[in-house]
Amino acid sequence: MKLGQLSEAALYASDLGAAERFYHGVLGLEIVSSMEGRGISFRCGATVLLVFDPARTRIPDAGVPTHGAKGGGHIAFMVDNSDLDPWRARLTERGVAIETEVAWPSGGRSLYFRDPAGNVVEFAPPALWR
Amino acid sequence: MKLGQLSEAALYASDLGAAERFYHGVLGLEIVSSMEGRGISFRCGATVLLVFDPARTRIPDAGVPTHGAKGGGHIAFMVDNSDLDPWRARLTERGVAIETEVAWPSGGRSLYFRDPAGNVVEFAPPALWR
Repeated sequence: MKLGQLSEAALYASDLGAAERFYHGVLGLEIVSSMEGRGISFRCGATVLLVFDPARTRIPDAGVPTHGAKGGGHIAFMVDNSDLDPWRARLTERGVAIETEVAWPSGGRSLYFRDPAGNVVEFAPPALWR
Repeated sequence: MKLGQLSEAALYASDLGAAERFYHGVLGLEIVSSMEGRGISFRCGATVLLVFDPARTRIPDAGVPTHGAKGGGHIAFMVDNSDLDPWRARLTERGVAIETEVAWPSGGRSLYFRDPAGNVVEFAPPALWR
């Protein structure tokens, strides 16, 4: 009886239109659903990123528990280091500022930037946690 | 140039001791590191759950961007439906209340409960988003 991997992570954004332009338009994630206007789910490999409007998820709704956070959250995507150069170029071209870049002692680099709601997004090397 | 799956998701908890007792002690996740007292990283398959003390991550620190949210967040783990009965029993035995359980139209069930900080944890069927 062992837990499997994370299947969903959630971030919060009051402006879901801006979130869609960022995660779908800039990062290229496929939209799975709009969750009845409460948020947007984006597919990323075997996992799903949920971006919720916290004003909607804090209200009791049909069946699922209430949640909703304020302030910057954090997620990381697995990105091969060989893809960091083109990503850096695309982000810069789209006006997304790279906030910082870290070279890990174990090898590999992470790129950090923010989504429009201020959440910290990281592109991390797949081997970082191995 | 396609993003890989999520590698990290973050939740926030002021009481990291309680978070450790819950995610390691009750849910059985392996602890990877204590991130210099800023939080705890737990391994779950190919992914890592980070639980941060937001009082620490909101302070500028060596190299990585500040973040830190207030209010309940949400994550889901992949759990086979055949494991839900023993999990329900273990959670109840450890005093963790099941907040709700959802039977999805596409098949499979999700179990929802809260961590000590009030974050909503879901055990979701692996096929939920396919």
